[in-house]
Formats: sequence, C-alpha cells, structure tokens
Amino acid sequence: MEKNFEIPSWQEAAGELVAVAAGRKPASLVLRNVRWVNVQSREIIPATDLAIAAGRFAYCGPDASHCIGDDTDIVECDGLYALPGFCDGHMHVESGMLTPARFAEAVIPHGTTTMFVDPHEIANVLGLSGVRLMHDEAMIQPVNMFVQMPSCVPSAPGLETPGARITPADVEEAMRWPGIAGLGEMMNFGGVVAGSPELLAEIASAQRAGKTVGGHYASPDLGPAFHAYLAAGPADDHEGTREIDAVSRARRGMRAMMRLGSAWYDVESQITAVTERGLDSRNFILCTDDCHSGTLVNEGHMNRVVKHAISCGCDPLVAIQMATINTATHFGMERELGSIAPGRRADAALTSDLGELPVLQVYARGRKLADRGELLVEAPRLAWPESARKSVKIGRPLGPEDFRIPAPAGANSVSARVIGIIENQAPTKALVEKLDVEDGYVRCDESRGICYLALVDRHGASGRIVKGFIGGFGYVGAMAIASTVAHDSHHMIVAGTDLENMALAGNRLAESDGGVTVWRDGEELALVGLPYAGLMSDRPAAEVAADAERMKEAMAACGCSLNNAFMQHSLLALAVIPELRITDLGLVDSTRFELVDLFVEEK
Amino acid sequence: MEKNFEIPSWQEAAGELVAVAAGRKPASLVLRNVRWVNVQSREIIPATDLAIAAGRFAYCGPDASHCIGDDTDIVECDGLYALPGFCDGHMHVESGMLTPARFAEAVIPHGTTTMFVDPHEIANVLGLSGVRLMHDEAMIQPVNMFVQMPSCVPSAPGLETPGARITPADVEEAMRWPGIAGLGEMMNFGGVVAGSPELLAEIASAQRAGKTVGGHYASPDLGPAFHAYLAAGPADDHEGTREIDAVSRARRGMRAMMRLGSAWYDVESQITAVTERGLDSRNFILCTDDCHSGTLVNEGHMNRVVKHAISCGCDPLVAIQMATINTATHFGMERELGSIAPGRRADAALTSDLGELPVLQVYARGRKLADRGELLVEAPRLAWPESARKSVKIGRPLGPEDFRIPAPAGANSVSARVIGIIENQAPTKALVEKLDVEDGYVRCDESRGICYLALVDRHGASGRIVKGFIGGFGYVGAMAIASTVAHDSHHMIVAGTDLENMALAGNRLAESDGGVTVWRDGEELALVGLPYAGLMSDRPAAEVAADAERMKEAMAACGCSLNNAFMQHSLLALAVIPELRITDLGLVDSTRFELVDLFVEEK
Repeated sequence: MEKNFEIPSWQEAAGELVAVAAGRKPASLVLRNVRWVNVQSREIIPATDLAIAAGRFAYCGPDASHCIGDDTDIVECDGLYALPGFCDGHMHVESGMLTPARFAEAVIPHGTTTMFVDPHEIANVLGLSGVRLMHDEAMIQPVNMFVQMPSCVPSAPGLETPGARITPADVEEAMRWPGIAGLGEMMNFGGVVAGSPELLAEIASAQRAGKTVGGHYASPDLGPAFHAYLAAGPADDHEGTREIDAVSRARRGMRAMMRLGSAWYDVESQITAVTERGLDSRNFILCTDDCHSGTLVNEGHMNRVVKHAISCGCDPLVAIQMATINTATHFGMERELGSIAPGRRADAALTSDLGELPVLQVYARGRKLADRGELLVEAPRLAWPESARKSVKIGRPLGPEDFRIPAPAGANSVSARVIGIIENQAPTKALVEKLDVEDGYVRCDESRGICYLALVDRHGASGRIVKGFIGGFGYVGAMAIASTVAHDSHHMIVAGTDLENMALAGNRLAESDGGVTVWRDGEELALVGLPYAGLMSDRPAAEVAADAERMKEAMAACGCSLNNAFMQHSLLALAVIPELRITDLGLVDSTRFELVDLFVEEK
Repeated sequence: MEKNFEIPSWQEAAGELVAVAAGRKPASLVLRNVRWVNVQSREIIPATDLAIAAGRFAYCGPDASHCIGDDTDIVECDGLYALPGFCDGHMHVESGMLTPARFAEAVIPHGTTTMFVDPHEIANVLGLSGVRLMHDEAMIQPVNMFVQMPSCVPSAPGLETPGARITPADVEEAMRWPGIAGLGEMMNFGGVVAGSPELLAEIASAQRAGKTVGGHYASPDLGPAFHAYLAAGPADDHEGTREIDAVSRARRGMRAMMRLGSAWYDVESQITAVTERGLDSRNFILCTDDCHSGTLVNEGHMNRVVKHAISCGCDPLVAIQMATINTATHFGMERELGSIAPGRRADAALTSDLGELPVLQVYARGRKLADRGELLVEAPRLAWPESARKSVKIGRPLGPEDFRIPAPAGANSVSARVIGIIENQAPTKALVEKLDVEDGYVRCDESRGICYLALVDRHGASGRIVKGFIGGFGYVGAMAIASTVAHDSHHMIVAGTDLENMALAGNRLAESDGGVTVWRDGEELALVGLPYAGLMSDRPAAEVAADAERMKEAMAACGCSLNNAFMQHSLLALAVIPELRITDLGLVDSTRFELVDLFVEEK
C-alpha cells in the first residue's frame, strides 16, 4: 500500500498546474460532471469538471476535456455534489482514544480531510515530546492534520502535577515545527485576564509566527473579564453555549466555534445568531472538540455536525462553509485547502444529497481514500518509542490497604467531603456527608451511593495516593473502576465500593500500560487498553468503540446507569471546573482554586 | 508636530490592552456613544463605547466607564457611526502625481487609513531602489501604507527599455522588507499562461513569504488561458469589467477587486454579482487602482468608491465590508486592521450618514488625523536622494532637428503608421495615413489632426529618439506637449504640431527634472513639475491638482478637447495594450507584440 501521501507545495506544482489548465499536459484525475458546491461564492454550479494534478485542483470549470490525456483517470460523477473535504476547527484526537493514524482512518470515510488537533492530553503525560509524536504522526497522514500547540499544561498550576509541563520556551520552539497551526486553546482565562506574562508570552510566540491562537473562555461573564480576554489575542472560542456568546465573540473578531461533540451540544443554541439574527456567517465555524470512537463509528464526524447544523435551520451551503472555507480562512490556509478551487489541495467529498449528506466518495490530495464508507488506504503510523507506550509508572504494586482511608484518631464517624456527580454536566457538587468509621478507617456507604475514590500518581512512580469519596454513580456490590484517562493531568483514578477490587483494577492498568478497566468480585468485566501514553489505542476505531461499549455495559452491571458515566469519571480530576475535584495534591475546591481537607471539622 | 506614528505590535501591547479592558489601567482615548459599524457581524450596534490604548482598540462594548482615568481623552460622539478606516486594496500612488506622504495627506481626510500600493511606475524608472524609497516613505506614514512589490518591469520585455528592471532575485529580496504586503499585479498574463519560470519564481517568492500575489488578467477570454492564470497563483484581480469576470474569479477563490478610479468605472457592471446574483460578498473588494490628484481633492478616495457602490444598490454594510475587512482578510491582516475590534489598530472614521458617507473625523492608530476634511497632521517625508530627484537624463539639449522625420530617399509622399487615439479608451487604432514630404522630411497634417510624436530616452542619456505620428488629439497651431509620465517605461513622450515647440518642451522637462509641460508659440502654457522620479511632486495635492487643471486647459487651448486627454498621452508608450504604440525601441504593433517600421511600403 502507498505510504507516502506528501504532495508538492502550490509553488512547486505551479508549472504543472498551469500546463494542465492550459491543456498542454494531462491531468492525473478528472472528476467529470459534478455539482460544484462552491464555498467561495456560496453557489451550486452544475455540470462542472474538476481536473487534478500534483494532488491539487488544476482546473474547475465547465469542460475539462482539454486536460484529459491517455493516462488521466476519469471518474464519471453523474451530477453528484462535490464539496470540499470537511475541516474540524478544533478537536482532541485523544478523546477518541485513538492514535492520530487510527483517528484519521475513522473519520476519512465521513469526509473529514482536515483537522486542527490540540494534543493537550498527551502533553500532560509526556510534555513537548508527546506533542512532537502526535505532530509527527499527524504529518504523514493522507489527510491534513495540523497541530495546535497546547498552551496550558498544567491546567491548574499549583493544584496538580502533570507528567510534564509546557513552558513558553516549548511554545516558542514548537512554532517552528512544520505542522503547527497555532496555539491550542488558552484555557487559563483567569490567568490571561490577570495579565500573566507567561501566558501572554505564549500568545505572542504564536502571533509572531503568524499562527492562530485558540481561545477557551469558559465563563458566562461577558463583562470586563471577557473583554480583557479578547484584548489578549485569542482568535477563536469553542466554549460558547448561548446565542449571546456566539454573537459577542463574532462581533469582536473572535471566531465563534460551535461544537457538536459526543457530549457537547452547542450548535443549536448558538447558530440562531446566523439563522435568526442574520449575522454574517463568515466568523462561525463548526467543530467537534471531543468525539468518542463510538460516535465516529456509529454517527460520523464533521458530516454529523454539518448535518446537525442544517437540521437546526442553517442553509446547507452556509453550514458547509462553516466546516470548510471559514475554518481554512481562520487558520490562514484559505489558499491551501477548504475549497474546490485552482491550486488548493484536491480534498473533496461526493454526496447525493445536501441535507442528509451521505458521503459516497472521499478524495484527499487528489487520491481516492474512501468509497461508500469503506476506507481504501491504511494510514501510516509512526514508530512510537517505548517511553510513550510504557507511561504508567506507579512505582509498586497496589494493595487494598493503599485505598483505605484512616479516620481522625478516635473518631466513630466523620463528616467528609464527597464529590457529587451531576448527570450530563461537567461541574460537580461539593457535598459533605457523614460516614461511619470502622477499625479506624472510614467506610463508604453503598446505600447512599458513596464510594471510595483514589488518585494514584502514575507519572512519577512515587507511590503517592490521594484519597476521597465520590457520590452519584450508583455503584453496588464489590466493584472498582480505574482509568489512566483522567483530565487534565491524567494520573490514575480508581473508584469503587471495594478495596480489593480497587487494587486489582489499579494493578491491571499498570501492567497493561493504561486504559480503563472495570472489576467486580475479583474479576475483570471490561478493559479498554490504551497503551499510547495511557490515553490512546492503535487498534481500529471499531474495536476500541466495542471495548468502550463493553466498559459501559460493565459499569451498568455495577449499578451505574448514568448517561456518559465514563466521561464523569474521567473528569473527576479536572481542577479547573467547579466545585470539588481530586488531584495528586489533594482535594481541590475548584470554585475557590484551593486545596481542602477531606474531613470537615464538626463545629 | 508629532513625527513618529509607530505603534507597538499587538503582542507588545497585549499587557496594556488587557489591563485597560479589565479596568486596571486607563485608556488613552475613549470614543463615547458611537453607532458601531460592525464589519465582522455586519451589524450596526448603537450606544457603543470604544476604548483605545497603545494605538489599538482595547475595549469595544456598551460601557467603557471602567477604562476611563484622569488622563483619558474622551470624545463624545453622540451616536455618530464609527466605521473602520477604509482600505484601498490596490492602487498606484504615482497616479496621483504625489509622493506617498502627499498622497497620504490627500486621502486621510476622506477616511482612508490603509493602502496597498504598487509602485510599478517608479520601479520602471529607478528599479528596486525606487521601490525601496516608496516603501520607506510609506512605512513612516500616520496611516497604513503597504507596498506590493512590482512584478513586471519591463511590462513588455523585448519591446521597451525601462530605466531599470525587476528580477526574481529583487522580488525575493523585497519579500523580506517589513512593509511589503505581497507581489504587485502580475500583468504579464501571457507569460504566466505560457509557464514562464521567471514569473512563476516571483509568485513562488511571495507565496513562500506568506504574502499575497496580485493579479492582472486583462482579457475577456475565460477559457483555458484564464484557468491557467488562476492555477499559477494570483490571488486577486482588478481587471474585470463584466459581471461574469467578477463571478468567474470569485468562484475560484481569486478575489474580485472592483475599481472606481479617476478613469476606471468597473464597480457598477460587476457588483451585480452580489446585489443581483447574491454571491457571497466576502470575495469582493473595492479599490481605486489609479486616482489623479484632482479626484482626490474634489471627489474623494475610497469613500467615493464605497458611496458609489451603495448608489449601485449595494447594502451599505456590505459595501463597507468590501473596503475594510474583506481587504484586510485578503492580505492576511484581519487581526491587525480593517475592523473595529479588540487588538486591531484603532483606525476609524466617524460619519453621520451611511449613504452619503460624510467623513467627519478620522482616527488612525488611536490618533485623530482629520476633522471635517481638515488634516490635523503633517505626513512625514523621507529625504529622497538626488538620484531620485534628478532622474531625467536625455544626454544633450534637444533641437527642432531632433524631431523631424526624414522621408525615404526620393519620396514625395509616404504611407506612415499613425497611432490613432480613441476617446475614453485605452486601446489605440493602428492607422496608416498618406503624408506629404517637404525638403526630404515628412510633414504632419494639422488638417487631419495628425501631429509629430517622439519618444526621447530619458533614462540612459543616450540621445536616442524614436519618432512617429499621432492622430486624434486635435492639436492646432504651433504647439507641443511633453511628459515624463509615459507608461510603463516612463521615457519622455513629446507630441506636437511644431518642431521648435517640441524641442522647447523637451528641454524644459529635462531642466525641471520631469513632469508635464504644454507649449504654444514658443511659450509655456502650463507645467506640472514632477521632480520625484519624473513622476511625482512633493507639493500638496491641491496644488498639483491645480497645475494639472491648468495643463488640461492648456491642452484645450491647443485644440484638444478629448476627455482625459492627458491619460491618452501618457499611455502612448504602453506596449501591452493594442494596437499601436511607441517605445524607445521603435513603433510597436501591440496586438502582435512586434516592432514595426514607421513607413508602410506601397504595394
């Protein structure tokens, strides 16, 4: 199979493109008789021929006969719509639990040919070298995968210890890498608003390099803090959830990225800015942010988002612009991709219907990559070093005793802080619950849905374990669930009703190099093996999705019937979102951004 | 007066902008209560305050009270519309016969704050060093003047000898200068379509530098040649004249620049692509290309173009976008200028009416530059070297004998090629007329409007003079007109009915370092002194416009009542436009691109 998908730059190819368009040289491929979905003019132009050479469009017009020679491959399209390959303006590959190559394979049949990828998760595990691995594997894909350099590692400085840190010097260095499209989402908006010199230095690095600064202003406050964040320079934001969020951003030249992820539903509430208020749509971009492999396998990728936008009342051409040319323009790549036009990368999807968007054929760089959902190529993989595939370092085997929680001396019962899960929401509740003490240790309380929680340092092999309680999952019986996907520092989170099972689950992840495992009564019910940085698998998306489905079933078998329960589990350490979290440094009051004790003193 | 108009980059200013927007530091200026003409969202937002610091917008929102301190300058705008300063997407400063500083002074009161300037004319006289002078003077202006590096000098290789040449190496060098926005109009479209390696190398230099390649496809042929030109990479084109020209370009991601110059009227015929066909307007840009000083003084600049577009039925907000954000985006500067939004250069015009567009106040980089048409600053001037101010080198004084045209030996009459002027059109007619011979010399024929024409080498001091005949101006009496503005090589063109007056006119320009002069009966009727490269004056636009008006009157006094007669005169050497021209190498059949003899042999 073809392994090299590189194409010459436009300027390198110009001589050939000119010769083909002029009719002096034959095209390599002609797509004959398409309906040209023109995102430049916002028109559908019937009876169009597209001639391709050197991986780029050479001629887009009514008759490519003069571009056809003996060796020209001709595809009769019989009036199918040809649209530019979809662009995802902001996304995390790790959310699919897939390596970049496997992620690319999963989305190509859905018509995605360009992704702007923020490897924030691996950066928390492996730092700059992890970002470089993602970058290098992204660079060799048959579709366009650009990397946004993570900006906020750790996410919550002083409240957590990630596996590595990203410094302004790292950002400065990464801006020189060929596949870096900009700075990844600037999540520390509080720091930006306060004028943090380090954060402003990262933004400045990206701006000086002529690249795009990703934003993340996750607050409903549109007062001075919002304006201060804008003044710092982030050029887009995908954290808006209300129409006014999108409107406020677009008006100020910060592009409103509207996301439909596996668990994000922010398009419908914001797209009314265009469909009802009639704002110029050029500053609106569709993205996924986070897609699980199950979504990719069963529902689609950017085609799903575009279809959803259309179902929300958006004109199909406008919706397609929001996932093609708008994105390309945003990243300064409008002359390289994002439209079917001369000189651009020949990335296109063929469909028979602009509402339902069935993706019939997918081309990238002039090569056919998928046909009616079937992938026709194998995405090249990088040889990942052992350091990236053996990243779970807990220092020693875990025993039940590692998870038990000693009570204050002499106490018969305690008032303990408990992280309270809220279904379908990222924030948690900071609960305080009375718990019994037995033999000097605090007991969880299955009857009230409260179980043990532990965060095991898996980066430093220190053997350090922080303990607490969690409520709301509904776990019953002797069970445990452990995961090395634990935003954002990605230590190991273990939750369970039973200390023995917790130790088994934790040890299992250490020996399988990471992932998610569910145990009951001393037996493993499900394992999602994620040996790449403890976050990703290099198996096909369908297999990973099947494993994830078994994990979900196992969680249900243990009594948890919450929607998206694993996401809740994986966010238990996310110290930037209220109200109570657990990190390797302790329990965090993530409303006040400070560490708090597990036990609340009686007053 | 303030002489330094530099401002810090956004990244240098970010700390201050954030502090101002957050309310921790006072703004330098607040425009209070404007109607915000929002070109990002295409809305008018009433009751908006704009806070400015470090020459940039820091806060754009409903209430800037928190940005105001003791030293903040507050302008009460009482609901005036605030729109981004206008951008001219493509223009030649030399067409105004003004230096960059004087041009800037002329257009600032009209609300123009950004210009993309192609110094093609001076490049023909002084080469790269001339471009650098324009660049350096442009860089120090109080408004944004970016330079497009001229791409085609000479315009007609092999058919003319300019004062200097621009090579691909020159282009490569210029791409590193700070004020270069891209490559100037690629006029040699025939060469591009043929795949000229030198022209493709120039385009590649600009693309590699991440800059914008200007196009110029001056042909109605939209067949393969057009597509080949597109495939070479020019990103815009201002040569379209028909709706289909604009449509064909916009669809293919080549921005359609629609011009209204002093003598270009290409907006009305093309803007229907947006107003009637409903194409996405983002790829349409307004520009002037060429404005005479009289137009600048009496009619305006980009405000005139925008007003005209509105009068053609374009929505005012769309028309304003075409002269602000669309242009900025095209040049990759959308985060630097072209909108009123945080971080952007604080360039704005205040108006009371969006149809008539009276420009009441003009701000650039946060500084008030004009008030109700009155300029409040003096534009800094460069110290131009003598080589640029003494550029007219004819080698020796001219005498009447230099202009007489010897007949073939023994002839009593001749059939001579005559350049026939067509009123209001750039092309000429290639006429052949019978002319009498007297004392061995061919005589012009006032009765048929045919007079003498000469092109004097004014770059090489060679004393070389090419002679011919011109018809259609209607000159009578003993007169002559001479000009060192003579597109594109800018030698000296002398036309007249009388050899003595022709010599007087030519010598006058040599001694006054260039310009235009009109003589009758041995006396000078008018002189437009243009000592800067023989093309520009550093006097105020109003004075130059008054001189130009006197020149026009003088031409009329000599019998010429054609509209725009001087333009016709100055284009007599433009060998790229049909049908017959004169250059320093001879008469040019500019349909077949070859030199031809003055006399046609009888058959």
